[in-house]
Amino acid sequence: MSRSEEKYGLHGKMEAQEGKGDQLADILLQAASMMASAPGCDLYMVSQDPNDADVIWVTEVWHNKEDHDQSLKIDGVGELISQALPLFASPPQGGMALQVLGGHGI
Amino acid sequence: MSRSEEKYGLHGKMEAQEGKGDQLADILLQAASMMASAPGCDLYMVSQDPNDADVIWVTEVWHNKEDHDQSLKIDGVGELISQALPLFASPPQGGMALQVLGGHGI
Repeated sequence: MSRSEEKYGLHGKMEAQEGKGDQLADILLQAASMMASAPGCDLYMVSQDPNDADVIWVTEVWHNKEDHDQSLKIDGVGELISQALPLFASPPQGGMALQVLGGHGI
Repeated sequence: MSRSEEKYGLHGKMEAQEGKGDQLADILLQAASMMASAPGCDLYMVSQDPNDADVIWVTEVWHNKEDHDQSLKIDGVGELISQALPLFASPPQGGMALQVLGGHGI
């Protein structure tokens, strides 16, 4: 990927209720599987905070913001969101936007 | 990637001196090219803060922490580090560690 092909990145924190981090991560890993066929999705990565299993990070790379926004309408994504919402300790804040310049593996 | 194969992630912020963000990003993109042949490197992604071109983010995924640590000894990496250091507004803090559980594109 050359620098002229900047992409839309997001790095967002999700805080689950106590003891619910693994369950939230599993739902997000199911979402990641769906994103494999979403147009414009290069990365949808789910991570856990090494110091707090109830803190989950999602790191996404999309060709552009529109592709990301469209992904929320994919069949089944709404269902996963409604499974995830009751697990949150606080509302997700949508993530920090990044202009992805390039690199290895993307 | 299944959940049983957790990987070592890092998401780190680098603050360049005023007007030096693009130059720092270029050096990090050169580092990313070197990481393509580093053992255990799945991702080395360089992003720019959309609101501040002097704030650069590096997101890395390695098979384990040892692979990451070894990468700092690769020929040429030390030279890039010495080119980058004078551009920093404040010392880089090494990044937030992530236990990468899996996802799409990784």
